[in-house]
Amino acid sequence: MIEDLIERMLRGDRRATARLITLVENDEEKAREIVKKIYPHTGKAYIIGITGPPGAGKSTLLDKLIHVAREEGKIVGVIAIDPTSPFTGGALLGDRIRMQRHSTDPGVFIRSMATRGSLGGLAKATSDAIKVLDAYGCDLIFVETVGVGQIEVDVIKTADTVVLVTVPGLGDDIQAIKAGLMEIADIFVINKADKEGADATYFELNMMLDLEKERWERRGWRPPIVESVATTMRGIRELWNVINEHRRFLEKSGEIQRKRTFRAAEEIKAIISGKIAQIISERLDEEEVSELIGKIVGREMDPYSAADMILEKTLGVKV
Amino acid sequence: MIEDLIERMLRGDRRATARLITLVENDEEKAREIVKKIYPHTGKAYIIGITGPPGAGKSTLLDKLIHVAREEGKIVGVIAIDPTSPFTGGALLGDRIRMQRHSTDPGVFIRSMATRGSLGGLAKATSDAIKVLDAYGCDLIFVETVGVGQIEVDVIKTADTVVLVTVPGLGDDIQAIKAGLMEIADIFVINKADKEGADATYFELNMMLDLEKERWERRGWRPPIVESVATTMRGIRELWNVINEHRRFLEKSGEIQRKRTFRAAEEIKAIISGKIAQIISERLDEEEVSELIGKIVGREMDPYSAADMILEKTLGVKV
Repeated sequence: MIEDLIERMLRGDRRATARLITLVENDEEKAREIVKKIYPHTGKAYIIGITGPPGAGKSTLLDKLIHVAREEGKIVGVIAIDPTSPFTGGALLGDRIRMQRHSTDPGVFIRSMATRGSLGGLAKATSDAIKVLDAYGCDLIFVETVGVGQIEVDVIKTADTVVLVTVPGLGDDIQAIKAGLMEIADIFVINKADKEGADATYFELNMMLDLEKERWERRGWRPPIVESVATTMRGIRELWNVINEHRRFLEKSGEIQRKRTFRAAEEIKAIISGKIAQIISERLDEEEVSELIGKIVGREMDPYSAADMILEKTLGVKV
Repeated sequence: MIEDLIERMLRGDRRATARLITLVENDEEKAREIVKKIYPHTGKAYIIGITGPPGAGKSTLLDKLIHVAREEGKIVGVIAIDPTSPFTGGALLGDRIRMQRHSTDPGVFIRSMATRGSLGGLAKATSDAIKVLDAYGCDLIFVETVGVGQIEVDVIKTADTVVLVTVPGLGDDIQAIKAGLMEIADIFVINKADKEGADATYFELNMMLDLEKERWERRGWRPPIVESVATTMRGIRELWNVINEHRRFLEKSGEIQRKRTFRAAEEIKAIISGKIAQIISERLDEEEVSELIGKIVGREMDPYSAADMILEKTLGVKV
């Protein structure tokens, strides 16, 4: 059945592709089987990460970028990471509706993924979904996140080009978040640039980049700052050109190889931590766990000693 | 030296306490040693998580809560999780300055922690820092996060009482984030309640809670909604009372035991994943890793097979 789905996907069947993404997302064993089989068909797509604080207008911007990419005949995949939860389910995907006008276009494949689930689970699911879209034949894959948490950062920084979208006039907290993402950005976008404070934001970003001059010079790429008003297409074509310029830079400098090496390393880490969690839960007796935890809560044993016992018992690891 | 620091901390020495937190944060081996030694002195502090989207005014709110707690003579600890990065360092802690007026008060201990570093590292560092503050003698420990990423959620949900702070009139993205935190909140705060849209936000939250009626009835606690304007103290005493009410509920219903069991389990998980990462990196040859990764990038081997090889080689685990 997986064989069959893969064959259909490789022939361009969208439903089979959607089904395969669902499988890699939800079923660890099937993910393993699928990735092993499609892997030789991957490595052709270019991955663009779009991130930034809540409310920066990322979805609208992405919608317009898809439009430009389609004009050039590119096959486009989109993975939108949603900070939803099992509690509210899919009810909050309204934001993505802006992109839905592309959903009837056979050259665009949009997929939402929730951040629910275990640590590392999202990173793994996203990289597997990227592989499916890559094998399907996407030329470009956009990964969109609300870039705040470490996991979202971990996901986005495996992209080839990382676009950080911000808006004028955000508060302290947002500044801090932006800063956390600063070092992973290849391109900055000040969206809603018609709003008050756009010049100040530009000035501030520019100054931050000046402070890091040595760093950019060493790397050979100073992140450009693009001002946009996504709703009116202002700046979108410029952003598109800058993305392509960054791609050429990566390819010419050989840095693309470094990025892909990093991505592979991150992927292995995610697979390993998922596997270890699975092994431990399989090899551990519920009752034993309750007893250990009871001792910790009762202050009879400290958590480090309990962890050591579990490691020795389940994996034979002596600490 | 650690023995000495612990002794001084137990006698109320702040510098020794600060030093111990730095050690548990940065040195895995010392964290282990310290936690084992102080563990019998912990378990007395009550942990309050404060979370919510960027710009909700959490720091100001917390500043006022500290003020009220101090009036009642409580010894207060604060761990503020900052979404900063090694790149920008501490330069963005400006937001915390609001709390700094308490920093000369010997009954308040404020500590910032960065989300930099590996997955799970933050959760472990935070729970160890909580233990140090607990052993030091804090009655209350506030943990503040910008609650968006999974790690921040994981940190906050180990608190005894979780306060979710929101503000009127946020966009779609923020709504989604709020939703992701909805299920872990014990108390909702609508801060900046003098702003337009406060009533609509109240109505919306209330409706969401109505939809989950069965859930709250089963649990015996319907999260109250407090309206506040932290800058003017409006609603702060009410929030303080509601926090204490929730605490009494947990203690009376025995739910506090369930929360602490959960916290201990999360802690063991964090310790285990940290230890595994350490073991793997110790037992793996740099060159072997490069070779494996090169094969993945070159599509000669898929990442799952590479992960299996590493697991077998470093931990003797057959997949």
